[in-house]
Amino acid sequence: MSHILIVGAGDYVGAAIARRFAQGGWTVSMGRRRGEALAPLVEDINQAGGKAFGHSMDARDEASVQNVFAKAEAVAPLDVVIFNVGGNVRFPIRDTTARVFRKVWEMACFGGFLTGRAAATAMVPRGTGCIFFTGATASMRGGNGFSAFASAKAGLRNLAQSMARELGPQGIHVAHVVIDAAIDTEWVREILARRGVDAAALEADTLMNPASVAETYWALAHQPRDAWTFEMDIRPYKETW
Amino acid sequence: MSHILIVGAGDYVGAAIARRFAQGGWTVSMGRRRGEALAPLVEDINQAGGKAFGHSMDARDEASVQNVFAKAEAVAPLDVVIFNVGGNVRFPIRDTTARVFRKVWEMACFGGFLTGRAAATAMVPRGTGCIFFTGATASMRGGNGFSAFASAKAGLRNLAQSMARELGPQGIHVAHVVIDAAIDTEWVREILARRGVDAAALEADTLMNPASVAETYWALAHQPRDAWTFEMDIRPYKETW
Amino acid sequence: MSHILIVGAGDYVGAAIARRFAQGGWTVSMGRRRGEALAPLVEDINQAGGKAFGHSMDARDEASVQNVFAKAEAVAPLDVVIFNVGGNVRFPIRDTTARVFRKVWEMACFGGFLTGRAAATAMVPRGTGCIFFTGATASMRGGNGFSAFASAKAGLRNLAQSMARELGPQGIHVAHVVIDAAIDTEWVREILARRGVDAAALEADTLMNPASVAETYWALAHQPRDAWTFEMDIRPYKETW
Amino acid sequence: MSHILIVGAGDYVGAAIARRFAQGGWTVSMGRRRGEALAPLVEDINQAGGKAFGHSMDARDEASVQNVFAKAEAVAPLDVVIFNVGGNVRFPIRDTTARVFRKVWEMACFGGFLTGRAAATAMVPRGTGCIFFTGATASMRGGNGFSAFASAKAGLRNLAQSMARELGPQGIHVAHVVIDAAIDTEWVREILARRGVDAAALEADTLMNPASVAETYWALAHQPRDAWTFEMDIRPYKETW
Repeated sequence: MSHILIVGAGDYVGAAIARRFAQGGWTVSMGRRRGEALAPLVEDINQAGGKAFGHSMDARDEASVQNVFAKAEAVAPLDVVIFNVGGNVRFPIRDTTARVFRKVWEMACFGGFLTGRAAATAMVPRGTGCIFFTGATASMRGGNGFSAFASAKAGLRNLAQSMARELGPQGIHVAHVVIDAAIDTEWVREILARRGVDAAALEADTLMNPASVAETYWALAHQPRDAWTFEMDIRPYKETW
Repeated sequence: MSHILIVGAGDYVGAAIARRFAQGGWTVSMGRRRGEALAPLVEDINQAGGKAFGHSMDARDEASVQNVFAKAEAVAPLDVVIFNVGGNVRFPIRDTTARVFRKVWEMACFGGFLTGRAAATAMVPRGTGCIFFTGATASMRGGNGFSAFASAKAGLRNLAQSMARELGPQGIHVAHVVIDAAIDTEWVREILARRGVDAAALEADTLMNPASVAETYWALAHQPRDAWTFEMDIRPYKETW
Repeated sequence: MSHILIVGAGDYVGAAIARRFAQGGWTVSMGRRRGEALAPLVEDINQAGGKAFGHSMDARDEASVQNVFAKAEAVAPLDVVIFNVGGNVRFPIRDTTARVFRKVWEMACFGGFLTGRAAATAMVPRGTGCIFFTGATASMRGGNGFSAFASAKAGLRNLAQSMARELGPQGIHVAHVVIDAAIDTEWVREILARRGVDAAALEADTLMNPASVAETYWALAHQPRDAWTFEMDIRPYKETW
Repeated sequence: MSHILIVGAGDYVGAAIARRFAQGGWTVSMGRRRGEALAPLVEDINQAGGKAFGHSMDARDEASVQNVFAKAEAVAPLDVVIFNVGGNVRFPIRDTTARVFRKVWEMACFGGFLTGRAAATAMVPRGTGCIFFTGATASMRGGNGFSAFASAKAGLRNLAQSMARELGPQGIHVAHVVIDAAIDTEWVREILARRGVDAAALEADTLMNPASVAETYWALAHQPRDAWTFEMDIRPYKETW
């Protein structure tokens, strides 16, 4: 049975990926800061006949990352690892504290390094496996006010590209998905509400459904190795870019 | 029943796309310079219970393109149109004739415009449809000796990007697939042979299987509209880039 | 004495380049559709003690390009050739005629090929020279409504990049300048006026001064060959991008 | 009198920038890890009638950065600040320690943030100034084995781009120079020697002269604000890319 580990298994995208792979018959391991928040999802998947595991995990902490990989690999060899930790903030450069700049990097980039390296360490000897990273518009361009976030996401992207070039010939599929969208979450709906936009009144498919991100990863995980994608963008049809 | 038109339906990628969509239950229309060369493929698909049509078509000629679209639309409204015309040549700049430079552009870029515009004209009033373009490494960078080809492919890419931005909000999915690979064709095997490489002795999946390109387009054609990809690259795992 | 040829020597950027190089002591050859329009500028430069030549030239026509190069090289070997032909148009894709799409490409890309190839043919045997191309925002991205222009400009850019990779090691400096700006011309002021903006009331340096583009080319033409620039962008400080 | 601060004032590029600006009549402040190593250069410049200051500075340390800015601003308002700290390392991903990954980022990216933010804080109220960042090939692509370096440099680049978009309209010129070259230093000559290449026997201008980098920054610092460059690459003419 195939096994996926989702690092940064939040309530929306992370959970959707977990459900998609569980539904496809995969064992699902998940890590997030407060692992206890995963309990309902783990239970859901297990009750539906799946096999899921939730872990408390600080992706910025080497020992924590290695600990979760050890536990996951003890269940079954990992076939897919997805790094899905965010950290979007917006500040003018002069108001960006060193603490914020560093923290955003630790979450969005350094955590990706620790995760990607642990995945590579497990997978390279087996000569197979997938390591996927969630990117954003900010991965590609540094917008006004996004010094910290765009810097960290660009760092993650080049890390992924470097890993893809190194690990591809060793049988490991590394990919980077650029999500150019507002994802349909409570948090986004609140932001919209504050701007006077009622998300419920938006045209369908204006926000990105977390399940669509999950489907993208499912497809990537099933590409034949003669046609691997390193990078793809996804955005709602109404998005202007 | 869904309907696809493949412009530049060659013996490898084009044919593989045709077979993939036919196998998925789609009606398949195809155009290539010498339409009679499509007869065996059309017959194959029809004998297998599918529905296929082959057309002689010069993608560089406005009347020819419009004629094929008229015939195809008379069968059934087009859901997907794929522009898959190549034109790779390599010359030092001083040896590149004006005739070659123009011809490569007419095939690889102008034909894409005529095809894309015809597709948009048919699809926009219906508010739905997919227009896909086949790109190459040369779409992204101008390599030494590829003045003509890289120029034309970059022109095609920016055309596609411009169309994606304009047509997305009108319900039309425009995508550009960057094939960074040698595709497994007779022609590539001959080139390799001339370089002293026996393709049969290459490790599996070193060349890209045309069927994998087809699968990529099949997946793109089925993305939900809240998560459309504009651009993705595909390459064999052993490829260095 | 050094010699520059400006292809697309319009009243603003082209003329500014001519004046800048003439002021630096260079012989200046210029080509534009209606060569007679160059007479006042030629006279100006000559009366100031410089040496200038104006030619009627259709950059899309091989014979015309070669004719102007022959005349210019007969005066003195060309050290710098700048291709500065525009062709910005904006149409929805469905309203873009084949004639417009082709014409924009012929002006903005094919003319660049003919010019660049003629320059390379003259310069490579001498192992020295500069070939510069004027780019635009549309060279880098295909914006909504710019199918024709963005396609042609991307084609020009990849042509330039391909030439840079081939010709650099042969001693020829190829560069591409991305102008991300509205240049201060009558035409731009009229467009602004139509939008209700009085250019005279704009803050200083909001529009780009043609002389600043000229200065950029002057600097590029004087880079030492251990530090050649292939690509640089220029934009006014107030520009949002 | 104008005033420049060079952060990461090493023996080659940093020193060359210092000499170029001093020669142009500027006051020069410099910071590097071991500030005492700057003494001979400071003395040189001062004896030639210039005005130079050397500081011990850890660009990764907020207090150290602010301390040097305070000292420099006490001499005269800073007109130009250049962040020139490197940190190139090459390791397979599995051999990249967390300590190395973090340290490379702290040097090449976080130091750039602390420097850029301090410069912005000083300059924005004055509505004028330049903040320049030294980039590398790795800023643009993640090569095999460069996970740490390419990640950090991409982070620096997107930081710079974000700052350029925010600060340009406030009168601050932010630029990023991509050096695609081996610079002529003792260190590079040793590496070449180890590979069996005698640098002395290389053709002239194969390595990049630090003075050419300095000239590039000098030119950027003198661009008129209607034509600011955000990004430019420089490479030796023989470079393949």
